[in-house]
Amino acid sequence: MKISLSVPHFFGNELHNLKQCIKKRWISSSGSIGTAFEKRIKNYIGSKYALGVINCTSALQLSVRLLNPKPKDEIIVPSITFVASVNAIVYNNCKPIFLDCDENLLLDTEKTLEFLNTKTFQHKGACYNKTTKKRILGVIAVHTFGNLVKLSKKFLDTCKKKNIKIIEDAAESFGSYYNSEKKKKHAATLGDLNCLSFNANKIITSGGGGMIIFKDKNLYKKGIYLASQAKDNSTYFIHNTVGYNFRLSSLHSSVGSAQISQISKIIKKKKMIHDLYKKEINKINGLTILEQPHYCVSNFWLNILIIDRNKYGLSKDQIIKNFLGKKIETRSVWYPNHLQRPFKNFQKYKIKNSKKLYENSLCLPSSFNLRIKDQIKVINFLKKKFR
Amino acid sequence: MKISLSVPHFFGNELHNLKQCIKKRWISSSGSIGTAFEKRIKNYIGSKYALGVINCTSALQLSVRLLNPKPKDEIIVPSITFVASVNAIVYNNCKPIFLDCDENLLLDTEKTLEFLNTKTFQHKGACYNKTTKKRILGVIAVHTFGNLVKLSKKFLDTCKKKNIKIIEDAAESFGSYYNSEKKKKHAATLGDLNCLSFNANKIITSGGGGMIIFKDKNLYKKGIYLASQAKDNSTYFIHNTVGYNFRLSSLHSSVGSAQISQISKIIKKKKMIHDLYKKEINKINGLTILEQPHYCVSNFWLNILIIDRNKYGLSKDQIIKNFLGKKIETRSVWYPNHLQRPFKNFQKYKIKNSKKLYENSLCLPSSFNLRIKDQIKVINFLKKKFR
Repeated sequence: MKISLSVPHFFGNELHNLKQCIKKRWISSSGSIGTAFEKRIKNYIGSKYALGVINCTSALQLSVRLLNPKPKDEIIVPSITFVASVNAIVYNNCKPIFLDCDENLLLDTEKTLEFLNTKTFQHKGACYNKTTKKRILGVIAVHTFGNLVKLSKKFLDTCKKKNIKIIEDAAESFGSYYNSEKKKKHAATLGDLNCLSFNANKIITSGGGGMIIFKDKNLYKKGIYLASQAKDNSTYFIHNTVGYNFRLSSLHSSVGSAQISQISKIIKKKKMIHDLYKKEINKINGLTILEQPHYCVSNFWLNILIIDRNKYGLSKDQIIKNFLGKKIETRSVWYPNHLQRPFKNFQKYKIKNSKKLYENSLCLPSSFNLRIKDQIKVINFLKKKFR
Repeated sequence: MKISLSVPHFFGNELHNLKQCIKKRWISSSGSIGTAFEKRIKNYIGSKYALGVINCTSALQLSVRLLNPKPKDEIIVPSITFVASVNAIVYNNCKPIFLDCDENLLLDTEKTLEFLNTKTFQHKGACYNKTTKKRILGVIAVHTFGNLVKLSKKFLDTCKKKNIKIIEDAAESFGSYYNSEKKKKHAATLGDLNCLSFNANKIITSGGGGMIIFKDKNLYKKGIYLASQAKDNSTYFIHNTVGYNFRLSSLHSSVGSAQISQISKIIKKKKMIHDLYKKEINKINGLTILEQPHYCVSNFWLNILIIDRNKYGLSKDQIIKNFLGKKIETRSVWYPNHLQRPFKNFQKYKIKNSKKLYENSLCLPSSFNLRIKDQIKVINFLKKKFR
């Protein structure tokens, strides 16, 4: 039997909730089922406003739109991220500025600060790029694989001072939090606009869905308006701007509500999977499991294997291929976006780590329902170098 | 109890299908459940290629994208349509050219032919707008309220000759067909790209969803690629163009499959509703029910009341307001798009009927489960002028 990378697990209450949708005859968007899911997510992470949308791609697209972009405005984004973070910028006719990652595969906020402090200037309250003379609207902080971008006080203060809005892309890090302060701060609560994913492979799933978490009530209201086709009058169909068909359906919301009730159990199991990988794989010469940064507690969504090829003797590509032969699904870390064909002509700033991280890192099977014997199988293949 | 405009009805098999999704652990996009829904739709309308997408808005957006638009290319669209048909053009950085409607609230193809024959010129195999000098890529033929745009042989031939692609927006007309030829031709089978909606208010629903029907296999393949985030390699995440997260989920597909099996029953009931409205309301001085054009058979999705204010004595607005007071939901025909704020600066060609049609037309309750006594209530309010 195939060992999958990250597949959903159902706990039983999903079907119960789906039955309620049919019973209430409420399967499409808006209505109490969607609101209930939004409320559960808000309560869990401790935020005020949440809007369910069809997926995290649309959450990111709408978040950029809510910054009121003009064509060719710029947004900072890490090179290492799923392409949706970059597409969200391009959909809005804005331009990405690619930044490097730190050793944790996370946007390097030190380097971003350096860029902001040396390569931009302020004009009429906005931040401009010295190189392109274009306005920089925001930064998308992508919390990859469960770990959180180092959103230090200095970074947050600088962005605020320069009027750079922060969009947290927390697609992979729902449930992770910063432990550096007395009160724990959840992913998706620090930025101006914050995006979650409930795609099937995520820590909890709605079977497809996303959410925007807002700090500001007016922005939240505008988000609802734009996500609902911008109807200024729904009897006469007056539209004063171009909106989107982005609301999350009740079917998906109902599954999401079922899953969020199991989040503690899921994270507990995910940590066990992580701990076993770490314990066993870190013993292997040339292999390491990526750990959570000291300043946060991860949801341990996906485990990243870092390969020192010279020491281990096999490359990332060879390992992926060998696993595939054993019916074990792994995948590479994303190919750096500043090198992708549609984006290679956009600005990049001192990118040094991203390419290397891409070449040395892959994702290991980490599903909630990964059996210990299967995990040991994965570990043993690595120990014995597939021999 | 409120009488709704158009709400879904469940037949029992929807829940059965949802259970299968959970049982098969397949609730997200792609996989056999989605393919089965696509197959059922294809078989029903008689087409070769179908791609389930998250909604009809995304179907339209992707259809325009599949015409390979360059910024400022132009697309012809009727002024009277739900805003999504126009937004799909704008999302692609193209410009709409607004055309008028005929007396059936459908794109006036005679006037469109006149526009194409007098206001365009050909250059290197493409059609250009004499006024703007921009390339005209296509025309979106919107089949409103169940009725079909008169896609005459002359119109189809002219578009082909001028290399104008036809996108059928059949969101409201799944199940309707042309009866002018020996073999019945279903809506969404004549255009190069054709869009369906399974929104909750439609003739059948998936609870939110849409579909693109293709004639061309390569275009279909490109559609799948673009709708699936344009992954040229899904292990290494290589993307050679900007794609979308547009695939329809299995949850929604499973509901759609349940509903399509009931389509004959639904259309039969819809025709009964239409016939009763027509019989009773056409007796009232100053009121008429919009009939199907002679060249097609409608699915009778929504019934349109046409008001001669001078004869009837009440305006559309007064009627809507009066119904609202009786807890009966009606809605206006869409406000003409060439007058909407985001679109009012785009080109329009001899629009004369649209505004008048908007002022004189409203949609009457037409749900599958509309009870006869409720329908008679609606009719009697109109007969007695709400007195």
